[in-house]
Amino acid sequence: MENYTVNDLSVGMSATMSKTVTEADIILFAGITGDFNPAHIDDEYAKASMFKERIAHGMLSAGFISATLAMKLPGPGSIYMSQNLKFKAPVKIGDTVKATVTITEINIDRKIIKLDTFCTVADKKVIMGDCTMMKP
Amino acid sequence: MENYTVNDLSVGMSATMSKTVTEADIILFAGITGDFNPAHIDDEYAKASMFKERIAHGMLSAGFISATLAMKLPGPGSIYMSQNLKFKAPVKIGDTVKATVTITEINIDRKIIKLDTFCTVADKKVIMGDCTMMKP
Amino acid sequence: MENYTVNDLSVGMSATMSKTVTEADIILFAGITGDFNPAHIDDEYAKASMFKERIAHGMLSAGFISATLAMKLPGPGSIYMSQNLKFKAPVKIGDTVKATVTITEINIDRKIIKLDTFCTVADKKVIMGDCTMMKP
Amino acid sequence: MENYTVNDLSVGMSATMSKTVTEADIILFAGITGDFNPAHIDDEYAKASMFKERIAHGMLSAGFISATLAMKLPGPGSIYMSQNLKFKAPVKIGDTVKATVTITEINIDRKIIKLDTFCTVADKKVIMGDCTMMKP
Repeated sequence: MENYTVNDLSVGMSATMSKTVTEADIILFAGITGDFNPAHIDDEYAKASMFKERIAHGMLSAGFISATLAMKLPGPGSIYMSQNLKFKAPVKIGDTVKATVTITEINIDRKIIKLDTFCTVADKKVIMGDCTMMKP
Repeated sequence: MENYTVNDLSVGMSATMSKTVTEADIILFAGITGDFNPAHIDDEYAKASMFKERIAHGMLSAGFISATLAMKLPGPGSIYMSQNLKFKAPVKIGDTVKATVTITEINIDRKIIKLDTFCTVADKKVIMGDCTMMKP
Repeated sequence: MENYTVNDLSVGMSATMSKTVTEADIILFAGITGDFNPAHIDDEYAKASMFKERIAHGMLSAGFISATLAMKLPGPGSIYMSQNLKFKAPVKIGDTVKATVTITEINIDRKIIKLDTFCTVADKKVIMGDCTMMKP
Repeated sequence: MENYTVNDLSVGMSATMSKTVTEADIILFAGITGDFNPAHIDDEYAKASMFKERIAHGMLSAGFISATLAMKLPGPGSIYMSQNLKFKAPVKIGDTVKATVTITEINIDRKIIKLDTFCTVADKKVIMGDCTMMKP
């Protein structure tokens, strides 16, 4: 896994990671970031809200994109340069989030890779976006 | 804190949050996202890398932006629509990250707020970007 | 939020915070304090006990009082001098605890503030008490 | 450990528990309670404060008293009725907190036990107080 270089990569390569979002993930994410938005940690508030139940922090699902980039493609040693995120739908406790990253552009000289990045829950897109990585 | 509506907001309003990034934060963030990039969790690897020590996940610092948006401005009840992030410099264990969010544009009819968002460590920008929130 | 001084406060001012207590909160609280009372962490023991299920640590709910004092009223920078707690009823997994703090007495010269403090679950008091804070 | 009844107890019996407070404990305690007082999580703020460094949440040390009561004396099965706490001095990262509980009064008919409770760091009292337990 550690041995990819930019020369081993090509446009269209893709990788995915899936994780079920648990209540514990949300508690811990709130705890390390300080994001105690009641939409995430107050079930009574959440039941009365437009989403009808507690939802995960958007940046938690974004973290699954980041994990897929770091662990799989372009893999360990990559440097994160930018990430654009559009939050399209909420993620609820028990949802299994699948992050998918696909190479759209490679600049071999500058060792820069662009990827399309999205997350789905049951085939519905919950996050869309793209990112730029460097693979030194 | 819960009582802001879009009518109470104006361009130029700003809010900040500061948090020291600890080893525990990084361990927990790795644990909930699955991002076990050795740059974050392998001290020997990190010492030999360009950053010379373990660095925090970019999405952890991005989480402080998200926390500031949710807790302070536009505050609880806001819905995250999009976030663009440029990672400019690494955050190391012990660094105190200050997230700053500033309103740049308000569309009262659509209840849409745009904000400039950045994180600094000792006045150096480590993340730059902007976001769109809805405040129903 | 950081700008309150004792002169901005008056008797009768009140603040609240709500959080749903999750199994993860109890596991983590047990882990950091070492309180492995089977009433909290052994579901089989708890089912046979007078409460019929696992209950949260009393000090976890007390922590919500402390959080409300620190984050809202008298707010950041306050120093905790004393807290009296009466545990009136158990808090169970899934209960949403609302902590309420209300100023009952202010000594401006000594910068000392006394507050009535309680926690409720669905309007039933689970903790009652009072505290003394200093706001330098 | 599980077999104590109120008849096995006598005034003057004492128990202790010691734990070193780590940065991770503070991060987790902040996370589950929502107490992001900068005194606990912002090292730059804390360095400029009267305590000169980050301090532990008072309720975290109080949790060690609760743990000693639950685990040792009066031991598992006890019900926490009340706890009075006076916070006398701050606890810093790396401090080893020793909680001591000592029986001061027993009402065998009502199964009520009163205890003196305190925490020390290097023999200096950081918390003083007393509590009432029921041992059914």
